[in-house]
Amino acid sequence: MDYIKNPMDIEKKSFEIIGREMGPHSFSDEELAIVKRVIHTTADFKYKEILYIRDGAIERALKLLKEGTVIYTDTNMALSGINKKALNELNCRVQCFVSREDIAREAKIRGITRSMAAVEIAAEEGVEFFVFGNAPTALFKLKELTLQGKAKPKFIIGAPVGFVGASQSKEEIEKLDIPMITVRGRKGGSNAAAAIVNALMYMLTRR
Amino acid sequence: MDYIKNPMDIEKKSFEIIGREMGPHSFSDEELAIVKRVIHTTADFKYKEILYIRDGAIERALKLLKEGTVIYTDTNMALSGINKKALNELNCRVQCFVSREDIAREAKIRGITRSMAAVEIAAEEGVEFFVFGNAPTALFKLKELTLQGKAKPKFIIGAPVGFVGASQSKEEIEKLDIPMITVRGRKGGSNAAAAIVNALMYMLTRR
Repeated sequence: MDYIKNPMDIEKKSFEIIGREMGPHSFSDEELAIVKRVIHTTADFKYKEILYIRDGAIERALKLLKEGTVIYTDTNMALSGINKKALNELNCRVQCFVSREDIAREAKIRGITRSMAAVEIAAEEGVEFFVFGNAPTALFKLKELTLQGKAKPKFIIGAPVGFVGASQSKEEIEKLDIPMITVRGRKGGSNAAAAIVNALMYMLTRR
Repeated sequence: MDYIKNPMDIEKKSFEIIGREMGPHSFSDEELAIVKRVIHTTADFKYKEILYIRDGAIERALKLLKEGTVIYTDTNMALSGINKKALNELNCRVQCFVSREDIAREAKIRGITRSMAAVEIAAEEGVEFFVFGNAPTALFKLKELTLQGKAKPKFIIGAPVGFVGASQSKEEIEKLDIPMITVRGRKGGSNAAAAIVNALMYMLTRR
């Protein structure tokens, strides 16, 4: 069988196809890099319409990445999808607390999701770069904590997927005046969230 | 803010919505459990049309899971998405070699993808349950190895996503007379692949 075996060739060709098929748009080069990477990850052109990139969001994300920020993810899947080579190159770290025993215990006792308990810990630890690909409850909780002054997010990726709360959680987080990228409506996911992080990192590492 | 905080309630409600919106179908109960879980993970009803569940595939997967099989995944993301509680309950294990140093080295030397090098190791180790959510090249390689008698897959989930080779890789693997579940066309992904594994496991653990 004859097939392309070089990963960078595969990616380059994929992006060309996406560019050709996605049709006219008014994205900046940097916005386009994000949109294309999410479509690359999902094979879903719908993301062209539902990705919301707030003015100033990319600049803020790049600033934090240059400072060697700690990235918080709501799931281990999103954590896994973030390119570790680029992350190391930027001296950034990524963490996810959702599988921690103490968090599971606390969530059970309080009748809340593990994602909610986890985001509280992240806020306490002073995380500024938040990535949500799964848990609407974590996004609601981050909004609460921010309004209470207990969390100080400087950049948020809000991409929970699903049928109960996901869409609403993104509407709610957008009410905060913070640089953010969201996926509007039901769609999103850990894969989309990680793809957004990777697209941002590559703006710095692949220059 | 008022929102559902119990994960099982959220899931139950989500599945009800999916059932209501997906419209008429001719899936068996077990097939439906898989289709719904993939839609739940992606918020994409398209999966109702593109999931291919071969006759006998579910029975074969459940048999392997009951035997405490080793599940091979092509990415750490798919590995992360597989429910570890259910996995432990079934005495199954999941492994992914793609990040191993020796595999990266070998792939570089031979000018192949890490996924291809990784699937060779999995075949050598006698893995029978293969899960692909990302790498078309790994699926092509598994087909080659199987035809050469070097791999003996008993069940395959073929769900690579993408624009170069993904669709073709699934067409090729379907030519093998092996129980399998695939996502036809460009769509798929590690999240979809993990959702299929979880749906299968829950048939045994959530009875």
